Amino acid sequence: MKNTQIKRYQQLAEELAEGIQAGVLRPGERLPSVRQTCVQRGMSPSTVFQAYGQLESRGLVEARARSGFYVRAGRRAPRAVPQAAQPRDEATPVAVSELVYALLDSTRDTDVIPLGSAFPASHLFPFDALARSGARAMRRLPATRITGALTAGDEGLRQALRRRYALHGVPMAENEPIITNGAMEALNLCLQAVTKPGDLVVVESPTFYAALHALERLHLNAVEVATDPRDGVDVDALGELLSRQKVAACWFMPSFQNPLGALMPPARKQALVELLAHHRVPLIEDDVYGELHAGARRPPPAKAFDRDGWVLHCSSFSKCLAPGYRVGWAAAGRFAPTVERLKMMSSLATALPPQLAVAEYLAQGGYDRHLRGLREALAAQQQRALRLVERHFPTGTRVTRPLGGYFLWLELPPPVDALALHHRAREHAISTAPGVLFSADRRFTHHLRLNVGHPGDARFDGALRRLGELAQGV
Amino acid sequence: MKNTQIKRYQQLAEELAEGIQAGVLRPGERLPSVRQTCVQRGMSPSTVFQAYGQLESRGLVEARARSGFYVRAGRRAPRAVPQAAQPRDEATPVAVSELVYALLDSTRDTDVIPLGSAFPASHLFPFDALARSGARAMRRLPATRITGALTAGDEGLRQALRRRYALHGVPMAENEPIITNGAMEALNLCLQAVTKPGDLVVVESPTFYAALHALERLHLNAVEVATDPRDGVDVDALGELLSRQKVAACWFMPSFQNPLGALMPPARKQALVELLAHHRVPLIEDDVYGELHAGARRPPPAKAFDRDGWVLHCSSFSKCLAPGYRVGWAAAGRFAPTVERLKMMSSLATALPPQLAVAEYLAQGGYDRHLRGLREALAAQQQRALRLVERHFPTGTRVTRPLGGYFLWLELPPPVDALALHHRAREHAISTAPGVLFSADRRFTHHLRLNVGHPGDARFDGALRRLGELAQGV
Repeated sequence: MKNTQIKRYQQLAEELAEGIQAGVLRPGERLPSVRQTCVQRGMSPSTVFQAYGQLESRGLVEARARSGFYVRAGRRAPRAVPQAAQPRDEATPVAVSELVYALLDSTRDTDVIPLGSAFPASHLFPFDALARSGARAMRRLPATRITGALTAGDEGLRQALRRRYALHGVPMAENEPIITNGAMEALNLCLQAVTKPGDLVVVESPTFYAALHALERLHLNAVEVATDPRDGVDVDALGELLSRQKVAACWFMPSFQNPLGALMPPARKQALVELLAHHRVPLIEDDVYGELHAGARRPPPAKAFDRDGWVLHCSSFSKCLAPGYRVGWAAAGRFAPTVERLKMMSSLATALPPQLAVAEYLAQGGYDRHLRGLREALAAQQQRALRLVERHFPTGTRVTRPLGGYFLWLELPPPVDALALHHRAREHAISTAPGVLFSADRRFTHHLRLNVGHPGDARFDGALRRLGELAQGV
Repeated sequence: MKNTQIKRYQQLAEELAEGIQAGVLRPGERLPSVRQTCVQRGMSPSTVFQAYGQLESRGLVEARARSGFYVRAGRRAPRAVPQAAQPRDEATPVAVSELVYALLDSTRDTDVIPLGSAFPASHLFPFDALARSGARAMRRLPATRITGALTAGDEGLRQALRRRYALHGVPMAENEPIITNGAMEALNLCLQAVTKPGDLVVVESPTFYAALHALERLHLNAVEVATDPRDGVDVDALGELLSRQKVAACWFMPSFQNPLGALMPPARKQALVELLAHHRVPLIEDDVYGELHAGARRPPPAKAFDRDGWVLHCSSFSKCLAPGYRVGWAAAGRFAPTVERLKMMSSLATALPPQLAVAEYLAQGGYDRHLRGLREALAAQQQRALRLVERHFPTGTRVTRPLGGYFLWLELPPPVDALALHHRAREHAISTAPGVLFSADRRFTHHLRLNVGHPGDARFDGALRRLGELAQGV
């Protein structure tokens, strides 16, 4: 991507977004046609398409087949969205408490309806096809390739990933990606590659608890940065933070953040990457939900804007294709050699059978079809869950409407304590992920993350309704 | 195991061992029959069997079918065995150099005959049967079990391991073992569970380089303890060290140590475990070669003597059944809950397909037959390799004769620099593992670890001969 081009489509998208937000362009209204805009603005069709595509991925407009782009109806008024947190601008040594472990454990009990779980429903994944692919690939593989399993991972799988990223405009170097034991290992290795004990790491507010775990394990301190429930990290606030404090790294989830579901618009991602490159601060990018976009196009990861190698991009197949297979990767830019060494030191290599199963499955060509079905199912279920929340939760409940992933983030009206609700719900065999899990200093006491990744499961719908009723009573 | 019983068979074994070493019992001579000894000593047959079995696992006697136990012929005179190192009794911050990485990389080049590699020949492993087992198990597994993959590992595999250990007299608790991404991850998790940055860890001298890597990664300091090439860690020397310095942990390989091949006799293991329990110092036990004994019985791991949970026992299937599958485990005693949490924090769970493939293979019942064949092949090849070393290496070369595993450790006569030899050998497309890899302070400059795990491969025999000739000329 050339820089001038980004700026032109970006400028157009921002202009239109402002028009929509100010009410100049109203819900249901059609945007000027691409041809019209080309003529008016003296732009190429591809620039205009990029701008419209970005508006679409931000959920502001929708494409209708053979008709054009329309301002989306039913965008919620801002008052119903949870408020952005005002994090304390202080380093916090991370210590995930016994309570947090107990809560996590409770989400694993199989007799419990796991509204607190981090994984979508198992029926969404092509396990039979993966098992067949795995068997075929393993039988075909020469034994010497098995004993010689390499730290960086199976070369066929790495090539397939490079090709796939290239199609999305993200070039990868020859030493990227390193295949890891899920994204979790990738993130941990990347974090270790760029920090030493006692360092300060910036995280979102709220933060995915695994980031807090990783910081704790490596004896690091966390500082939270303001994070908008819709647009993600506040880059200006981050800039101020960086000018005042010595920071070793940022650990962010720029697309469909866990737990908020926030999606940083491309311009924000670009500004983030440029800010961090300027300060020479590495960005650890957790992109595990990137493929689960509700809009038509995959949002670009921050790595798409990385020119100097400061982005350590991590992802996996665990949320979009093969849970339990633990096939993840790190494309760590200038830190790729360091990450490969750390991988060798800490777990030598990633198991070969799951890598080959996934590589073979990708080679068969069914992945994009699977993803389309998965995205549709998740988006439909989100709508259904939102209606249940509106109907059954207490008045004053705020809820996110993420443009991808399968989490809702609820802000309950102040009298409702989310931890008390969690315990009540457990008595009804329902797990939740209360907000205290998502902050080093136990804020978000009346917040809740709900897993809505279980389409077509009446038990989940029932549990959601019941949870709302319990919240009325807590 | 009851304590008094251990002591009685132990006492008998030591007495007989002394007799053998002093020449009272000569090579080829038959030990008194079990019945005879029972009567003479007033011992139960099982006690006498235990004593004889221990002598056998130490390589001092051999069992002949329907005949009895005989003092082994051909035990080498001590002069030909490499000398025990005299480690400096100082903490060394661990920094594995660029050189070491370059050396490791060179052992991975597939065009090179890998005398420096850490893995045996791929034809020794039942990859086809494993692939079939894996496919069968994955197709049978309910999808919910796949998405719900647990941090501790597949329960079926864990049960199979518990049963197997119990058969060898090693009880495991319900929260043991934790399945890991190979033994490497198990060892790293255990090390992290019992240390914090800056701590001091005792390692053998020489040490497996992965231990040095792990220490480096976790910002730990190493102190080496005297290690006999045949009998392993000098427990008295360790006792002195512990009385003078504050030590956070020991990382040892009590059976078939890498690179020495040393096997600590059971009494030494027991003394080690008791010493460490007394000092409340955890022992991280790397037992990956335990199944590859040349004698008739598996040597007991240190964990067999652990009454207070200070032993963190780690092993895997990577060297004895399924390289590339990365199925390892940690049975971490009193630290099991900590290790499970660290596993959750750092890589969430181990990939399920390889776990199920191994579990299904074990359930089919072919594992012990496979192991017998593997052991015989490795023992025969060791004999062959020893003859080649004797014939082709310079006069004055000392070499170990391990009772298991597939490494030889060579001490070349002082003028021969092992690193220079390594570089010469690389020009002839032969890799070696020079001694400097195995110490934090780059000692063992004229030592060499050779992989002799490639039975029936004329290329390996040729490479060994060539290496000896090169050593003559360096």
